[in-house]
Amino acid sequence: MNIAVVGLGLIGGSFCKSIKKYTDHKVYGLDINENSVKLALECKAIDEDLHTTDNLKNMDLVIVSLHPTQSINFILENLDNFKRDSLVMDTCGIKQGIVDRVYKPLKDKGVLFVGAHPMAGREFSGFEYSLDNLFDNASFIVTPFEDTPAHITEFIKYFAQKLQFGKIVVTTPEEHDRVIAFTSQLAHVVSNAYMKSPSAKQESGFSAGSFQDLTRVAKLDENMWTDLFMLNKKALLFEIDTIIEKLQEYKQAMENDNSEELKELLREGRLLKEESLKNI
Amino acid sequence: MNIAVVGLGLIGGSFCKSIKKYTDHKVYGLDINENSVKLALECKAIDEDLHTTDNLKNMDLVIVSLHPTQSINFILENLDNFKRDSLVMDTCGIKQGIVDRVYKPLKDKGVLFVGAHPMAGREFSGFEYSLDNLFDNASFIVTPFEDTPAHITEFIKYFAQKLQFGKIVVTTPEEHDRVIAFTSQLAHVVSNAYMKSPSAKQESGFSAGSFQDLTRVAKLDENMWTDLFMLNKKALLFEIDTIIEKLQEYKQAMENDNSEELKELLREGRLLKEESLKNI
Repeated sequence: MNIAVVGLGLIGGSFCKSIKKYTDHKVYGLDINENSVKLALECKAIDEDLHTTDNLKNMDLVIVSLHPTQSINFILENLDNFKRDSLVMDTCGIKQGIVDRVYKPLKDKGVLFVGAHPMAGREFSGFEYSLDNLFDNASFIVTPFEDTPAHITEFIKYFAQKLQFGKIVVTTPEEHDRVIAFTSQLAHVVSNAYMKSPSAKQESGFSAGSFQDLTRVAKLDENMWTDLFMLNKKALLFEIDTIIEKLQEYKQAMENDNSEELKELLREGRLLKEESLKNI
Repeated sequence: MNIAVVGLGLIGGSFCKSIKKYTDHKVYGLDINENSVKLALECKAIDEDLHTTDNLKNMDLVIVSLHPTQSINFILENLDNFKRDSLVMDTCGIKQGIVDRVYKPLKDKGVLFVGAHPMAGREFSGFEYSLDNLFDNASFIVTPFEDTPAHITEFIKYFAQKLQFGKIVVTTPEEHDRVIAFTSQLAHVVSNAYMKSPSAKQESGFSAGSFQDLTRVAKLDENMWTDLFMLNKKALLFEIDTIIEKLQEYKQAMENDNSEELKELLREGRLLKEESLKNI
């Protein structure tokens, strides 16, 4: 079948490379950055440049890999260009805010939308950093709608397996956004905030692995993450409030010189981490 | 020369293995856990069991690798057992609280104390996990006293280089504790607190690298870390207060629907991380 990947960045580029490596589908690329298209053609990550959105009418599957608001805008601006009965999929890190905006308008045009979130990334962005093995063993989350035909969900799962995703999770957009606020968004906020201590300027030579781990994702694309955070405000605010509240418990125990309380707080955290390691 | 390593855990065991691998010194081990001594003898990490503290009198260098309070107690209980003009070194993650308690009493007995902190670790403890390459390229921090003879500091630096430590930092106990509160202690508190969201129970399948990185060190030894935190309360409380304050800024920006402010906060954190990566 014909697949168009819209947005040849880290994720879009990795989709192109994985589809070419593991399937026989024909891949078309579209990007406003001409250099990304050129690079993708050169390394055979795509078969052809899609050139214009008019050509979407020949595509069976369109994977939109733009930032969240851009993804919404792209889909809404091209409602009349998608082929009837074709499938449109996004790859954004939030789902409710996307699904709410595009599902119904696409459905009215006879086009099916399914939200997806490939749980993979790097602290770099752009086609240059895309990899044909970025998705190896990564989780792939798909959020079908109540009336999404079962065979469509099955196709998406099968397609993700072909691209070497590991765990494939089917869930609702609400549930996705609630959990992702914790596992991904909070990690980026905390990591970014961590760097803001005045002590950060003196850490050279004093930093073991713990500092590097805690702050790895502080190097983020602020445009994309601002978009993701604002579209998932409620769930993320809950997580920020929760960690602040928990940090205050350790603080209190220390201020009260209560070693037993501090030890118990640390023990609880260790047990929760050990429990979570069992589920990997 | 004769070196005794007191406490054959992860760090003590790794010292034994590295000294045997990279130097010709004779290594004696002491541990209340007989099995650790047996294991260390079997794998030739030590040449001999020290058996009793009476034998400290034949040691030129004693490396005390116990938890902080245990290290202080061991040294104070053995003031009369160390050889005159010998060197005693600890390996704890805090320095001021150790130095303040043991430097003077040892000096009165003609024994020199130098505080050290090998910046290496794993999320496991015990001799079984010790490695002869744990210190490869790690930072080694040494905190001499004002009246520590220069040749002693030079010897420690040379010795750490032999054991394959990378960066060797000479600093004061105060400065060490202030920076370590940020680079290591805060990382453990935040990581541990991170696990306490109710969402942690649903993360399976939704966790990308960011969650794993942020929570790796949540699996900690609560006895040791309680000791370390309580002995460095002031500096650590400052860091906890700072990160809570910074987290509140992101929260505020989101609550006020201020995308520009949120983006600016994220940009600042990214730039600080990029700056810090230049100094690795």
